[in-house]
Amino acid sequence: MADSRPGPLGIVAGSGALPRRLVESCRAAGREVFVLALEGEAEPATVDGVPHAWCRIGAAARGFELLHANAVTELVLAGAVRRPSLSALRPDWRAAKFFARVGYRALGDDGLLSAVIKELEGEGFRVVGVDDLLEADAMLPAGRLGRLQPDARAEADIEHGLRLARAIGALDIGQAVVVQQGLVLGVEAIEGTDGLLRRCAGLRRDGPGGVLVKTAKPGQEQRVDRPTIGVRTVILAAEAGLRGIAAEAGATLILDRAEVIRAANEAGLFVVGVTAP
Amino acid sequence: MADSRPGPLGIVAGSGALPRRLVESCRAAGREVFVLALEGEAEPATVDGVPHAWCRIGAAARGFELLHANAVTELVLAGAVRRPSLSALRPDWRAAKFFARVGYRALGDDGLLSAVIKELEGEGFRVVGVDDLLEADAMLPAGRLGRLQPDARAEADIEHGLRLARAIGALDIGQAVVVQQGLVLGVEAIEGTDGLLRRCAGLRRDGPGGVLVKTAKPGQEQRVDRPTIGVRTVILAAEAGLRGIAAEAGATLILDRAEVIRAANEAGLFVVGVTAP
Repeated sequence: MADSRPGPLGIVAGSGALPRRLVESCRAAGREVFVLALEGEAEPATVDGVPHAWCRIGAAARGFELLHANAVTELVLAGAVRRPSLSALRPDWRAAKFFARVGYRALGDDGLLSAVIKELEGEGFRVVGVDDLLEADAMLPAGRLGRLQPDARAEADIEHGLRLARAIGALDIGQAVVVQQGLVLGVEAIEGTDGLLRRCAGLRRDGPGGVLVKTAKPGQEQRVDRPTIGVRTVILAAEAGLRGIAAEAGATLILDRAEVIRAANEAGLFVVGVTAP
Repeated sequence: MADSRPGPLGIVAGSGALPRRLVESCRAAGREVFVLALEGEAEPATVDGVPHAWCRIGAAARGFELLHANAVTELVLAGAVRRPSLSALRPDWRAAKFFARVGYRALGDDGLLSAVIKELEGEGFRVVGVDDLLEADAMLPAGRLGRLQPDARAEADIEHGLRLARAIGALDIGQAVVVQQGLVLGVEAIEGTDGLLRRCAGLRRDGPGGVLVKTAKPGQEQRVDRPTIGVRTVILAAEAGLRGIAAEAGATLILDRAEVIRAANEAGLFVVGVTAP
């Protein structure tokens, strides 16, 4: 596989387990990688024993230089990045030029990511999606993943949550909501799904627990920021007293599928792939 | 005033300072009151030295009995109520009859409140709005309230926040959002505005602080659940590093207006009444 490609795969790495999973998938496939690890986001384990360099998010000129110097022509953006304010970003000349053109504040997350991808393509990189590089079973299928299935009450919460999550996504606010017995316990914004789940632990009502519902934003740039579920999602959902997780089938990445299933079965949670209305 | 009315004003009291403010307004106007204090919600100070009884939210039969026994024919619902799950509500036969008819889970907050008001009217009570009973200056006017005014950057956040808050309201999720430099730091759901502000303290980005934007839900039942701002809102907004508060003019109640202005001026926050698009 390495021979047919012009150089190592460039992995621009944010936080979470996804970038490391990509490194391992590439290794298994015999593909070389170069990781551009984003400071304050990527985890040290991501770059352990892997060709890499650390880079500030606002240092675009240096980032491009590093990628070119390491013969990267194909790129993937992986992992979460907490969007900084423009002042915290401290853009270098290259990033400032980009932001001056696209308007940082004017763009929602999704608009900004699309603009970033266009900029990378303008620099000569081919940008691929995470799901082109992971195993086929990394995408959440329709139906239940583990042993448990939602009952009628949970199904009603899932349906309500799907409608809301799509609307929240269309407003470019976030991807996830938590619904319990018809009540919206929380809506994800900049804090991310883990933050949402942590705070819902203190908001739960008595009776049957709620459901985390996660969908892709309508019209979302598919090469970045895919909804993702991992073992930590299951653990935090259990700690928040939820009964299960429903996410958009065919659009959500499952990290460590076997581990997710084991954790869900152990905690007594369902995990289902659903189709947004 | 007391002579022209058939009996004491019934105040069904939730949490916060509003119910007590009503008690005091009525006293100043020579109107008698009877407070039905909701257990777990109303503050003890609300009923201090006032004819009252405590009642569980789910104990509708007892609540009606108490109101009738105290010759109440005119009612106001005031203060916040954290909506419980149906199981936590432990409805008595009268509440159960009501929920069986309207469907607890099927209704959003606003739909449920409208149904409650209809039910109260069916029981023979006249339900009035809080703003019919408070001083004329309790309603937030358009324009700035204190010394400070938003700058252009804050104005952009207010405009963005208004659009989102209206959309969140239309989905019956909540009334408030916090926006900083175009980023949505948080969306209010069941945790309420105070909870939203507390968690935004940990989510703020560097640079100029954000704005709390609060609006009425489109088509909201005007006799309950009005957006409200008080001194605590100002203090929590300051602690969250916000630069100001914008709320819907002509639809938002200001509790302790003079205190709110003083607290805002001291903390260096603006408070403005704005018109939703």
